[in-house]
Amino acid sequence: MGPPTTADGSNLIGRNLPVDGARVAADLAELAKLTEPDRPWTRRSFTPMFLKGRDWLARRMREAGLEPTIDAGGNLVGRRVGRKPGLGTLMIGSHSDTVPDGGLYDGTAGVIAGIEVARALVDAGIELDHDLEIVDFLAEEVSVFGVSCIGSRAMAGLLPDAWLQREAENRSLRNAMIDVGAKPNVLSARTDIRACLELHIEQGPVLENACEPVGIVTSIAGITRIALHVTGRLDHAGTTPMDLRDDALVTAAALVLDINAEARRRANEEPGHFTATVGEFAISPGAANVVPGSADLLIDARASEPAAMPSFLDWLRSRIQHRAITMQVISQNAPSPCDPAVCNELEQATLRLGVKSRRMVSGAGHDTAWISRIAPAAMIFVPCKGGRSHCPEESADPEDISVGAAVLFQTLLALDAQPADK
Amino acid sequence: MGPPTTADGSNLIGRNLPVDGARVAADLAELAKLTEPDRPWTRRSFTPMFLKGRDWLARRMREAGLEPTIDAGGNLVGRRVGRKPGLGTLMIGSHSDTVPDGGLYDGTAGVIAGIEVARALVDAGIELDHDLEIVDFLAEEVSVFGVSCIGSRAMAGLLPDAWLQREAENRSLRNAMIDVGAKPNVLSARTDIRACLELHIEQGPVLENACEPVGIVTSIAGITRIALHVTGRLDHAGTTPMDLRDDALVTAAALVLDINAEARRRANEEPGHFTATVGEFAISPGAANVVPGSADLLIDARASEPAAMPSFLDWLRSRIQHRAITMQVISQNAPSPCDPAVCNELEQATLRLGVKSRRMVSGAGHDTAWISRIAPAAMIFVPCKGGRSHCPEESADPEDISVGAAVLFQTLLALDAQPADK
Repeated sequence: MGPPTTADGSNLIGRNLPVDGARVAADLAELAKLTEPDRPWTRRSFTPMFLKGRDWLARRMREAGLEPTIDAGGNLVGRRVGRKPGLGTLMIGSHSDTVPDGGLYDGTAGVIAGIEVARALVDAGIELDHDLEIVDFLAEEVSVFGVSCIGSRAMAGLLPDAWLQREAENRSLRNAMIDVGAKPNVLSARTDIRACLELHIEQGPVLENACEPVGIVTSIAGITRIALHVTGRLDHAGTTPMDLRDDALVTAAALVLDINAEARRRANEEPGHFTATVGEFAISPGAANVVPGSADLLIDARASEPAAMPSFLDWLRSRIQHRAITMQVISQNAPSPCDPAVCNELEQATLRLGVKSRRMVSGAGHDTAWISRIAPAAMIFVPCKGGRSHCPEESADPEDISVGAAVLFQTLLALDAQPADK
Repeated sequence: MGPPTTADGSNLIGRNLPVDGARVAADLAELAKLTEPDRPWTRRSFTPMFLKGRDWLARRMREAGLEPTIDAGGNLVGRRVGRKPGLGTLMIGSHSDTVPDGGLYDGTAGVIAGIEVARALVDAGIELDHDLEIVDFLAEEVSVFGVSCIGSRAMAGLLPDAWLQREAENRSLRNAMIDVGAKPNVLSARTDIRACLELHIEQGPVLENACEPVGIVTSIAGITRIALHVTGRLDHAGTTPMDLRDDALVTAAALVLDINAEARRRANEEPGHFTATVGEFAISPGAANVVPGSADLLIDARASEPAAMPSFLDWLRSRIQHRAITMQVISQNAPSPCDPAVCNELEQATLRLGVKSRRMVSGAGHDTAWISRIAPAAMIFVPCKGGRSHCPEESADPEDISVGAAVLFQTLLALDAQPADK
């Protein structure tokens, strides 16, 4: 990955950004040290290491003139009151928790970028009219409790009650939340958020391949999970002639290819983002000398356009019709469009900074998807090396993260300057 | 499955066969009772239940005028000396051990048919010139020691020395053999076998579908096991655009379909028996939201024609060439042709009995494959219901088994009448 470039191709390194790239790089390096020593880079929600990370973040927030507290949903919120009470809150947030073994930049880039924006405001002597909050959302990644985006769902008043009873490692999610300072009995949706911004690594290869430092996320794809069960006939692999078989693996393999071809067609020919992936696949009985009798597939399908998923499910139903294949939709989330006005402000900011950007869709889920239910919210992506994430090799250039932080800084100023009723 | 028919379509039931169908049915029913009570029908080699079965078989052999002994390879051999010493031995054998949960007819049909032939000779007052042996080969099925055809390999002098050191359930195969009466330290190839016959259920659907009671096995297919490893690129299933993926499951699925199509083509267009089955198939990491990074396939390929397997391996090598797929031949057995002269005698016997038959290839391995290395050997198949075997539902009609026993009886007489040097 080369250094990021401006719209006219000149090198950004050394540019006079409103944020301090060296501070961003140093903060990321320091936070990275707070990892389970035997499996870098790991700082999973609800663990002692996670709380160490939050203590460090709270200190950095204080140094940036933010007052850190834990809200009812367990989010770490660094707040600075604005000059005009009642205008509402401008928020920048992401998450500091990680998946096992991976998370050097996934989440942390956005939290550190938020703190850097707060510091840059202090450096520039800028006081906002709105209240400012920099947020570390609780448990964005799937934790031991098996669910994700706990803090942002809680802030949106959308954390399912039943989830609080989930048990792992000898405590309930309710008690685990209480242990990090949350008050899960008094959750309600925030109504004061004027706008929410998030910076995140792309977790895909598009920006890196295009040599563009910023992606403006117009929508966060909805995720649908579909289980397929293929029934064939278990037979002796040596004695059953090829033409007298009903091999479940052969049926399932054809299904995998058709699903892949259909997803490619939709991704290429239809508007928006579409993916479909068979990520889990198993046959039974799985013995060398036995023709497979059944196969199980799990499809992860994601679409940014509301009409795309029902249409894909229709295609899939007709594909398996009149065959010994059953289909069950396991879970389904609608896509979350980002706020168009906030997207426009983000884009204007890139233009003011002379930074190339593209509009794109997020195939991954993010806290912004939940905050977008209760407030104007949008997010930007920055490139990551090889599109890799959720692995020890996950890598992003702190310079790119600083460019993204500068975009957030400019956008924040623009939003702060707008009348509240706009 | 309807009743077996003669070549002119008349019903065989009530025919005047040289063997007694009622005795065959009664013996099969009695032997079936000697099963592990909690998992019918199970009588695995080296277990107390297996030894109970052999005690019962030895009694039946004695009643048929055979002298039962355990040979050096652990085979139960019921022997009756012929009228002309030195002519050699005519042998009929199969196995009484079973796989777990299945084995009502697989193996037992051939052992009981052999004993019935010996009884029928006594009933008809026929004394053979040759010595006669009815054999229950040791451990034809894969036992706890993980290998098969121990007794027939031993009789052929082809039991690998290293196998004797295999350990399971706190004893070596050597000691397990000694515990059933074998003498594994003095194994050598038999040189006196004039001919060996085996009756076995088909374990496939061909005879039943064709309404033919007897299959004359011209060759026992060789088995080749090939491991394939497909390397793709693990990626985020939501954020990686469809066209930028290297999905190992998609690559592997195309391979499964091509292997299946190639095997069908060879089975249909080329002489002999050919099958190729992907019976084991796994992807990694196998997570809903991750594009599969690798896949492992195990192919079981079987061919009756010596040239077919090298040709298939060439095809496979060229299919995976220049792709991120590695291939390893795990094991390889050459096909075992049955003795053409003995096959002719079997066919002549069916014609004399007025029984329809077809020449066919065995896709499964059998003791005859090993005895064929040291003596003229051949086998016949009888139909089994739905082609099913190695399962509790395995089923065959005792009347079909009796027709097969009659074929063995007639063949034995013909072989006995031939000069030894033919």
